[in-house]
Amino acid sequence: MIDLTNAHKKRVTQLRLPKFRQKYDLFVVEGIKIVTELCQEMPQAIEQLIATPEWCANNAAALRHLSPQSVAMATEADLQALTTLTTAPPVLAVVRRFNGAQTAPDLAARVQRGVSLVLATVQDPGNMGTILRVADWFGVAAVFCSPDCADIYNPKVVQATMGSLWRVPIIVAEPTAVFAAYPTVAVCGAVLGGDNLYTATLPTPAFLVMGNESKGLPPELQQLLQQKLTIPRIGAAESLNVGVATGILLSHWRG
Amino acid sequence: MIDLTNAHKKRVTQLRLPKFRQKYDLFVVEGIKIVTELCQEMPQAIEQLIATPEWCANNAAALRHLSPQSVAMATEADLQALTTLTTAPPVLAVVRRFNGAQTAPDLAARVQRGVSLVLATVQDPGNMGTILRVADWFGVAAVFCSPDCADIYNPKVVQATMGSLWRVPIIVAEPTAVFAAYPTVAVCGAVLGGDNLYTATLPTPAFLVMGNESKGLPPELQQLLQQKLTIPRIGAAESLNVGVATGILLSHWRG
Repeated sequence: MIDLTNAHKKRVTQLRLPKFRQKYDLFVVEGIKIVTELCQEMPQAIEQLIATPEWCANNAAALRHLSPQSVAMATEADLQALTTLTTAPPVLAVVRRFNGAQTAPDLAARVQRGVSLVLATVQDPGNMGTILRVADWFGVAAVFCSPDCADIYNPKVVQATMGSLWRVPIIVAEPTAVFAAYPTVAVCGAVLGGDNLYTATLPTPAFLVMGNESKGLPPELQQLLQQKLTIPRIGAAESLNVGVATGILLSHWRG
Repeated sequence: MIDLTNAHKKRVTQLRLPKFRQKYDLFVVEGIKIVTELCQEMPQAIEQLIATPEWCANNAAALRHLSPQSVAMATEADLQALTTLTTAPPVLAVVRRFNGAQTAPDLAARVQRGVSLVLATVQDPGNMGTILRVADWFGVAAVFCSPDCADIYNPKVVQATMGSLWRVPIIVAEPTAVFAAYPTVAVCGAVLGGDNLYTATLPTPAFLVMGNESKGLPPELQQLLQQKLTIPRIGAAESLNVGVATGILLSHWRG
């Protein structure tokens, strides 16, 4: 194990900004639960783990797959200065960004036999994190995000996904390019006035397209939908949260 | 219409704190969309509307049911100082808190023939708002919140509900007292290792009990469940967001 340097500190602070996450192809994961999971499930993605000596002493098993120089010792004050959380965690990690095509070498086969999400301009980081967690729960084949979605490596997204970030293959791509690449996969989406979700026959393989929080799906994507679905409304709410709607739709694909 | 006074300003600022919301039985609603809905759907609850002269001039229809002295004119700088939102809205309202028993005089009959939510220690304001919106979408009979849930009049909850706050009867009460008051209503909840949601017969009338974000349902409430349900998991996520889980469960009651 090594001591924390100013270069480490600078890198962590820089990675709060999208441009540095892009430039270095790195992001930051914070907190005991999520870092422990990362050590167990994807240790090869960890470039630098930063932790208190106490945490390291108590978590030898989690550190087993890391090289000694990839673990830096820090004080609580160091971690307080580096964290974006309100309470400083005893551990955080600088992590190489995942690529859906790397994490799922069988990506095309997965997409061609399962249900994938296509997110168009989902902009709230909390919603993005919730959707990735739902996608993981229901075992979706992949999640395709349009380039104007919230950055999946935004700290709020990372924390909200609770580890689903590295379990679900995620690819940033224009929805139209995704549909063109997989012409045999049915394009489905939720709109007002579509088929009743509860009685419709839901196709597989399928793309389930989810749109922006306030604007929904743009007309050019609505035109490409081969199946339009509606979650029947009984009360008076104008809309459902996009994460909730995604969960409901996927649960009816499965159940 | 009247001019904004220092007393108005003080009251709005005080209402950011739970103790003053409790003391005065008031809360604050901010922003064009939600205040306009409130003016249309529940004008009698508005104690004081505070808006720019421009907004008032352009929204005469919305103001139709308000008395002249309940509308105070403010500058943009005033609203900037009063708002909890990042961008100052042209209108906000001081509103009398609702009481589920008032908004639904037929509460007992509703509960005895429908599906109601019982929230036990749901503590995140965003989740609370999302759940109230889902409850409105699916037309639940009522939402019962344990006293240690997030305050439904917290500004973040109010904004997240998008108007569902006054369309759904909401009652703060201990879950055990709720079950005791309605002995003929089946008590159901989501736990690990329960009946498969997709194949279970879902009873009506029912209470659907949802627990804390990280701890779930406490053992003493789990013991009271007459039907234990599980949303089958296909992937590896450890849990679902409580708002998403509520939406999935309610959708299967309905579909």
